[in-house]
Amino acid sequence: MIRFYNGKVLSFGGGLKITEDEVWVDGSRIVYVGPARAELPPFQRQIDLKGDLLMPGFKDAHTHTAMVFLRSYADDMPLQEWLYDKVFPHEAKLTPEAIYTFTRLGILEYLSSGITASFDMYYHNEAYAKANVDSGFRTVICSAMNDFDADPTNIEREFLRFNDYHELVSYRLGIHAEYTTSRQRMEYMASLAEKYQAPCYMHCAETKSEVEGCVERYGLTPPQLLDRMGLFRYGGGGFHCTWMNDEDIALFARKGIYAITNPASNLKLASGIAPVDQMLSAGVPMAIGTDGAASNNALDMFREMYLASCLQKVSRNDAAAGKAENILTMACVGGARAMGLNDCDDIAEGKLADLVVIDLHRPNMQPVNNIAKNLVFAGSKENVRLTMVNGRVLYEKGAFFVGEEPEEIYRQAAALNRSIL
Amino acid sequence: MIRFYNGKVLSFGGGLKITEDEVWVDGSRIVYVGPARAELPPFQRQIDLKGDLLMPGFKDAHTHTAMVFLRSYADDMPLQEWLYDKVFPHEAKLTPEAIYTFTRLGILEYLSSGITASFDMYYHNEAYAKANVDSGFRTVICSAMNDFDADPTNIEREFLRFNDYHELVSYRLGIHAEYTTSRQRMEYMASLAEKYQAPCYMHCAETKSEVEGCVERYGLTPPQLLDRMGLFRYGGGGFHCTWMNDEDIALFARKGIYAITNPASNLKLASGIAPVDQMLSAGVPMAIGTDGAASNNALDMFREMYLASCLQKVSRNDAAAGKAENILTMACVGGARAMGLNDCDDIAEGKLADLVVIDLHRPNMQPVNNIAKNLVFAGSKENVRLTMVNGRVLYEKGAFFVGEEPEEIYRQAAALNRSIL
Repeated sequence: MIRFYNGKVLSFGGGLKITEDEVWVDGSRIVYVGPARAELPPFQRQIDLKGDLLMPGFKDAHTHTAMVFLRSYADDMPLQEWLYDKVFPHEAKLTPEAIYTFTRLGILEYLSSGITASFDMYYHNEAYAKANVDSGFRTVICSAMNDFDADPTNIEREFLRFNDYHELVSYRLGIHAEYTTSRQRMEYMASLAEKYQAPCYMHCAETKSEVEGCVERYGLTPPQLLDRMGLFRYGGGGFHCTWMNDEDIALFARKGIYAITNPASNLKLASGIAPVDQMLSAGVPMAIGTDGAASNNALDMFREMYLASCLQKVSRNDAAAGKAENILTMACVGGARAMGLNDCDDIAEGKLADLVVIDLHRPNMQPVNNIAKNLVFAGSKENVRLTMVNGRVLYEKGAFFVGEEPEEIYRQAAALNRSIL
Repeated sequence: MIRFYNGKVLSFGGGLKITEDEVWVDGSRIVYVGPARAELPPFQRQIDLKGDLLMPGFKDAHTHTAMVFLRSYADDMPLQEWLYDKVFPHEAKLTPEAIYTFTRLGILEYLSSGITASFDMYYHNEAYAKANVDSGFRTVICSAMNDFDADPTNIEREFLRFNDYHELVSYRLGIHAEYTTSRQRMEYMASLAEKYQAPCYMHCAETKSEVEGCVERYGLTPPQLLDRMGLFRYGGGGFHCTWMNDEDIALFARKGIYAITNPASNLKLASGIAPVDQMLSAGVPMAIGTDGAASNNALDMFREMYLASCLQKVSRNDAAAGKAENILTMACVGGARAMGLNDCDDIAEGKLADLVVIDLHRPNMQPVNNIAKNLVFAGSKENVRLTMVNGRVLYEKGAFFVGEEPEEIYRQAAALNRSIL
């Protein structure tokens, strides 16, 4: 057992609260949250929080982890040129070995940002899953059905395989997006959702032109089309949701479909600013993702939270919009539930031990007037003191414990990039 | 002498470039930038960069350092309520002792973000200057003339005093803003600018309502009024410059007046998005500031650079806008020159040794496809390995060397806040 003591605990059960409790972890689970006890069981390790904050890990609810290979490779360019000249041709060269190494690199960055799980959509899922398991990191793979897949039935085999692969890995049904997937293939995906009574996810209303194209093709916005086709029959979510109209928002709220916002990517690719406050007010369940590092360029939940809040303020011309507590809840609880990790959403007895310790003894957290607002408006990777996934410390005081030295991962990634770029 | 070797050097002379040079520092100056030499003089310390990047420090060209006391004290509120109920009443209680301690706290945060100089406008300048000198930090004080000053002639005495106070401190003329300063007082300031042939600075076109009020009062926008009144006769700059029309921009370009953008503050207070790209294209000299921590809430130049770039992309609907290299130049060279620190703008022989070392061996900097874009789009406080001001290492590997322990500064700041808030 591991004991965390002498600190603060942020939890969400019954609303965001901060207590002076201890947290004990046994194996992969949190087994005790409460006041210090006179008699202690034997512990394998006792971690003195020294007044620091223990809280649920952040969940990156939309990402393409291995895209770190394109970080800062092509920026400040028009969108189409970037995508067709700089992204697609290089992605085509990715081997399973490359996906494995780049995924390991991306996981290092998640850990340094206090992220304890990712909801990933990309290629070569066998290599991807192995990189996560080898690192000790938790991931949910989302299928990316589209018209370029040679064999769409592979998704059903993957669905069965990766939901019975390892405790750190699960798999959700998804299509890449309406604009890359034929009606026939979307219908096939709907049949899979029906067969397995499974939720379904996809890029959805990311750009204005995507919405306009869908309306032209089908006479419906993407959310309405996807719903009409039965893809949301058992829930699911849309990635980005930048261009949602009132009907789209009402639909997501009514059906409990997650809107997963990616504010940094939407800024950098000039896609727009999602109506986060409007969706929250309407009752849409929400989560936050980084998107891939090619369009961000960091995997940094502090940046995403800051933007998810402050972009609401400027776009709604209201400094009271985008309340920090709502954003923090999205990043922790919303993210976990969006990807089906309901056991990873909070600090509570019986939950999986996916947690972070935030260093409050850094100048950007002082004075401690309000911890939640400090996290959202001033937090940074420098504040991540420890990241634990499934009961294992994978990151602490700048060092990584993922079964491989970072320098070796950097070296391999650089060598791969020399052959790919 | 201190020797930095085995790394990369980013400099701006003749355009942004990265070399494999060494850098030697003697006293407060850079005395050598060039290839490794066979014969070395005796060094007091030799710092192996291990492939990391040495570059000019960031300059925070608009801030109110001591406002860290209000960090996360009142957020997510309407602007007027925030300002009149939560900021002004507490600022009125600030003593010189409080300014001293809060300034020391703010300086810690600057150092952790690679910021080597601040351009500050606030109260109790004697205590403020002492906090900087005691910390070894460089600052330029800007007077904040307004209608609430009991004695505006004090500014002339401060101008003379703080420009002859300590090598780390200088003083520039400024008014708080047009909307807080009577015509008579602005005329007095213009006479001081004339008398000392000195540049003049002020909050300028920060909000839409400020511009509308000025036009109503004077029939001119703030930039045009301030120019007409002679405040820019010897140069200077405007803080924020969020709402600049084409004529304002042409005026700033023609006269070489600095536009100092504060993107995070403008987001959080819902002020707007400054036309950074348009100003740069027109030839306006530009710099970047954090504004105070009450409206940001971090003092983090990485966040500011990211926003200064990416907000251009989304607001102009052009992913090619806000080029990283321009933004980085603003943060280093532009900032130094905006505040009159022309000797602190670059890594070159004879320049003052205000520099930072960026840790490239963190996952967010890997792979190293493009260092400038990495800094702007993925950089974070976690990447600041070392910050040197005036030839002294004030921050290294998370530890501060400012003549006082951070924990003691935190303790004092917390005690003060208990009496103020």
